[in-house]
Amino acid sequence: MVQPRATRPIGRIPVVDVAPQVDNGNRPAKSVVGEEFPVTATVFREGHDAVGATVVLTGPDGGELARPMVKVNAGLDAWAVTVAGDRTGTWSYRVEGWSDPYGTWNHDAVIKVGAGVDVELMLEEGARVLERALAEVERTPEQGAVLRTAIKGLRDSATDPQTRLGAGLSAAVRTELAERPLREHVTAGPELPWLVERDRALYGAWYEFFPRSEGATHDPATGKWTSGTFATAAERLPAVAAMGFDVIYLTPIHPIGRINRKGPNNSLESGPDDPGSPYGIGAAEGGHDTIHPDLGTFDDFDAFVARARELGLEVAFDLALNCAPDHPWVTGHPEWFTTRADGTVAYAENPPKKYQDIYPLNFDNDPEGLYAEIRRVVRLWIDHGVTIFRVDNPHTKPLEFWERLLADVAAEHPEVIWLAEAFTRPPMMHTLAKIGYQQSYTYYAWRHGKTEIQEYLTELAGPAAAYMRPNFWPTTHDILTPFLQRGGPAAWKMRAALAATLSPSYGIYAGYELMENVPRPGAEEQIDNEKYQYRDRRWAERSGGPLAPYLTRLNEIRRAHPALHWLRNIRFHFSDHENVLVFSKARRVYDRDDVIVVVANLDPSVNADTWIHLTMPELGLDWHDGFVAHDLITGQHWNWWEHNYVRVGPDTEPVHIIHVTPY
Amino acid sequence: MVQPRATRPIGRIPVVDVAPQVDNGNRPAKSVVGEEFPVTATVFREGHDAVGATVVLTGPDGGELARPMVKVNAGLDAWAVTVAGDRTGTWSYRVEGWSDPYGTWNHDAVIKVGAGVDVELMLEEGARVLERALAEVERTPEQGAVLRTAIKGLRDSATDPQTRLGAGLSAAVRTELAERPLREHVTAGPELPWLVERDRALYGAWYEFFPRSEGATHDPATGKWTSGTFATAAERLPAVAAMGFDVIYLTPIHPIGRINRKGPNNSLESGPDDPGSPYGIGAAEGGHDTIHPDLGTFDDFDAFVARARELGLEVAFDLALNCAPDHPWVTGHPEWFTTRADGTVAYAENPPKKYQDIYPLNFDNDPEGLYAEIRRVVRLWIDHGVTIFRVDNPHTKPLEFWERLLADVAAEHPEVIWLAEAFTRPPMMHTLAKIGYQQSYTYYAWRHGKTEIQEYLTELAGPAAAYMRPNFWPTTHDILTPFLQRGGPAAWKMRAALAATLSPSYGIYAGYELMENVPRPGAEEQIDNEKYQYRDRRWAERSGGPLAPYLTRLNEIRRAHPALHWLRNIRFHFSDHENVLVFSKARRVYDRDDVIVVVANLDPSVNADTWIHLTMPELGLDWHDGFVAHDLITGQHWNWWEHNYVRVGPDTEPVHIIHVTPY
Repeated sequence: MVQPRATRPIGRIPVVDVAPQVDNGNRPAKSVVGEEFPVTATVFREGHDAVGATVVLTGPDGGELARPMVKVNAGLDAWAVTVAGDRTGTWSYRVEGWSDPYGTWNHDAVIKVGAGVDVELMLEEGARVLERALAEVERTPEQGAVLRTAIKGLRDSATDPQTRLGAGLSAAVRTELAERPLREHVTAGPELPWLVERDRALYGAWYEFFPRSEGATHDPATGKWTSGTFATAAERLPAVAAMGFDVIYLTPIHPIGRINRKGPNNSLESGPDDPGSPYGIGAAEGGHDTIHPDLGTFDDFDAFVARARELGLEVAFDLALNCAPDHPWVTGHPEWFTTRADGTVAYAENPPKKYQDIYPLNFDNDPEGLYAEIRRVVRLWIDHGVTIFRVDNPHTKPLEFWERLLADVAAEHPEVIWLAEAFTRPPMMHTLAKIGYQQSYTYYAWRHGKTEIQEYLTELAGPAAAYMRPNFWPTTHDILTPFLQRGGPAAWKMRAALAATLSPSYGIYAGYELMENVPRPGAEEQIDNEKYQYRDRRWAERSGGPLAPYLTRLNEIRRAHPALHWLRNIRFHFSDHENVLVFSKARRVYDRDDVIVVVANLDPSVNADTWIHLTMPELGLDWHDGFVAHDLITGQHWNWWEHNYVRVGPDTEPVHIIHVTPY
Repeated sequence: MVQPRATRPIGRIPVVDVAPQVDNGNRPAKSVVGEEFPVTATVFREGHDAVGATVVLTGPDGGELARPMVKVNAGLDAWAVTVAGDRTGTWSYRVEGWSDPYGTWNHDAVIKVGAGVDVELMLEEGARVLERALAEVERTPEQGAVLRTAIKGLRDSATDPQTRLGAGLSAAVRTELAERPLREHVTAGPELPWLVERDRALYGAWYEFFPRSEGATHDPATGKWTSGTFATAAERLPAVAAMGFDVIYLTPIHPIGRINRKGPNNSLESGPDDPGSPYGIGAAEGGHDTIHPDLGTFDDFDAFVARARELGLEVAFDLALNCAPDHPWVTGHPEWFTTRADGTVAYAENPPKKYQDIYPLNFDNDPEGLYAEIRRVVRLWIDHGVTIFRVDNPHTKPLEFWERLLADVAAEHPEVIWLAEAFTRPPMMHTLAKIGYQQSYTYYAWRHGKTEIQEYLTELAGPAAAYMRPNFWPTTHDILTPFLQRGGPAAWKMRAALAATLSPSYGIYAGYELMENVPRPGAEEQIDNEKYQYRDRRWAERSGGPLAPYLTRLNEIRRAHPALHWLRNIRFHFSDHENVLVFSKARRVYDRDDVIVVVANLDPSVNADTWIHLTMPELGLDWHDGFVAHDLITGQHWNWWEHNYVRVGPDTEPVHIIHVTPY
């Protein structure tokens, strides 16, 4: 029996528990350009000598950058530093532990010279440490002069010991050695991968619509609908941009299957004029590489994308890998589907329910062939200007498929962003993020209580932030929660305001401006759902909807306040009321702190009057400081302190979004 | 910018978060032969098909053993199994995730045949799954016959569908496929190292003495002492063995330095007859490879070891890598010490205090030379029968030194056990365990409150149990807590009983039987400490000490009850009293459960009368069951249930150790 030897020895100065480590360092931790990225480690040594810790960042070009770490918990030997990547690309970081001769001497010399013990010896040893610091570490002449002066002072036997000691411990010497320390026994922890992505991977306001509904017209005489087109949908874009959104997300734009097509309200029978669900993809006209003829041509799509870009909107494409029975792949590549014992192609099921309008892909019969085809489809849409993919139900396709696809796309187009619609169990949701998805819808739609919001955000902004980024949606075309069905305007405002401030990315499904709150009986989704029929929202005659100004204001606030562009900076504060949620986000931009405090009444039915209690240092203030609280929603100003009395909606605004201005 | 690819792809069926993983799988998890070793993992797949998980154990000879895992939390896709290594050696374990065609069919068939949907198709598909299970997995003719019968039954169109379905889902088929499943897309998680060690690495009762004290005699006429010898110390061994101890631990046995030797009670001045501290090692007679002439020769040591073995005691050797100024290494190898700026050798310090009787080793000047010498010393003592090393202050020597030494020793002598006396911060204590130490004293001596004991044991028996094993000592020659100084007999009983039942390994320092409770003023250690002088405890005239029968009973109980040989099996129960601690340990041995419940009053000054509330399933019982509670300390019997009224000391016994006998 031989005790197994570690493949990674402990080393001279142990560096353990470096965080973040995603999947034990097998996959990259993530941040966006300029975003705070905290690195922590446990660094210690035997005996009593001083240690130091440095984080070394290696940029995409291979250049290294060292930053000193700070001991944040002496009893646990815990070190930390917050860094940032200044450009996109594949970085790495490692923590180096080292023995600190100057720190050891400093500690001992202060005590011993103070006690009159070994005075000359301690002063001479200090001079020798500084001589080594001069000889072994590169410095400019000016930097070296600081140490030379100190050495001379330490050896100046004409002056008293405390003065000589002071020469070795001056602020100038300490600063010089903090910047360029004398490091002994430097020991490197693991080299860990770090992916720095563009800002939109973390921050953005999304707007979802069904292009066929935008500009669809109903002829009362015939009862027939005429589909909207890319051209008519583009006419809605200026309003979306004017509301301050950054991304326009289109539900699928492909030909829709006719076999077993669903009718209105998910009925099994469809009439000849029912347009079918855009998620039932593929018909005689083509499949995932084809545009629905009603919407237009590739030229029309290109024009739509160009118009969106002109307005500052990125286009997000819905990648829904579902096939209708008449999808060209079904006949062309039956091996991409499952054939049952009776020779039929397997349709989707949730036994005993059957979804006969959808054939699920089988990724195991011909993985290479199917992969190549989907890779081709994705490349096609990227070539037509798509920079964001919203993926429908990624959790029903193999993870190894996504891992490969996202890595291959990133190799050619690192700017592409993937949002996972994985409303499923936590391991799948988290693993999709780890293998490459930039964003996940997460469980926001179903988190309503104060404690559950605090706990969930603490998880998302804590360990999970190393690899997963939330995109909070109060509703989608599939989700209309009972809370919003019944909560009234205060609920619709509050859920949008929370989404927009808790999470750097959030999204709105068209109709949110109208507070469309009527569900299909027995379902938690819209009645007369656009998935199965056209919807003309008559924007013009409804002035864009009663909530449009509120959403516009939210997006203005988001753009003006960089603190809201981040996730890891969220901090919760206390309120005496069980339904009043209080949180803040702070961020230093150049020399100025941007600090936002949000106070929300989570109950849309009753006003809340309560004291709130702010952890002032989280706002960059001292406990006894006051500040001007400027409510960015109403424009009101108050003088606030640690303890403040607030009233929040529904009679007044349900949410304060406070900009903190110190006196 | 290229997204970094994972060195370990996610695979077809993801297997993530396998535990235990010590240092990300870089170092082995540990157990002893036969000890429960829990393996957990998160295993899931896309879509709705069933998955399975298997743990595969690879033994020291390379043979593999597969065990099915059980889904313990469906919402979190969590799987678990408890395994055991049946012999010592370097094992490994991996978790395999797989798609389960039989499970998928089972789930769908029950629903669809029940609902009359696709009946013939489902039955035929079941037959085909079983045909694959027959063709693809090796089975005996009998095992195969079970599946053949089922296939025939599934296709027997003469009978009704539910009967045919029942043939495919019979208990015999399920059992056969649980044992030898049809596994698709088998995906292996990481291969993780696992060290299975001998029982004594986890379980044992230790007794510490200073050999020179055992048989030391004082001449009242001259006032002079005569040292005990290995021969006289061996005369104490039968009593130690009779008390039921397993290990006899000797403080250092080497020549003691004369330069700056400490006198009684740690005084800086010593008289010519003061024996000095055995921890101030090395003099003209020799160093760590030498025996103090007062104790005897190597032959005498060998005889002592032989006598101990005869009595069933293993000898633990105190490896204290301290050197007195007159240690032969100081002149022979000045490079193994630190030379200061004034040319002197550095003594130990805790500024401004100086410990001029000790020169600390410097491991950095000549690491290879010093390593070779210490390796030689350790081998010497192993060659003389030492199988256990208790290491003094390992946290003042480099971790990489210990990692190398312990691995090298294990390669030749895997039976050797190392106990770290690392009373220091948690990262050092835990890392010493990770790099090879079998045991640590831990913080037991200073854990007195109910909550802190529960929390600390939950940590030790939980994640930390994968690599660290506690050895609980209520006192040592360096530790006499205020609690034991003042607590009286109930405190001494209770702290021993808790050490002996909370931890599989525990130890007693000689004199515990006598409840020696007088401290040196201002210190938390014995007055007239044996470290600096002889102590004749006059065992014979004191009948071995008033606590000897209690310690004997504790060790009898430990030996009779295998549940107490383990750590991971500890479970805490409720009591209504803030000072009454209740815990249990259960273990199945062959077909019998050994179950112990301990009820302790943590306050030695006041009796505690209280209700206790037992989590009955942890005792292998149903909530409504009763049992006979046999107090192994007093021999009393009671009828106990979930809720019981108890009284615990100091007026009666302070601790119940209950053996659970179901009716």
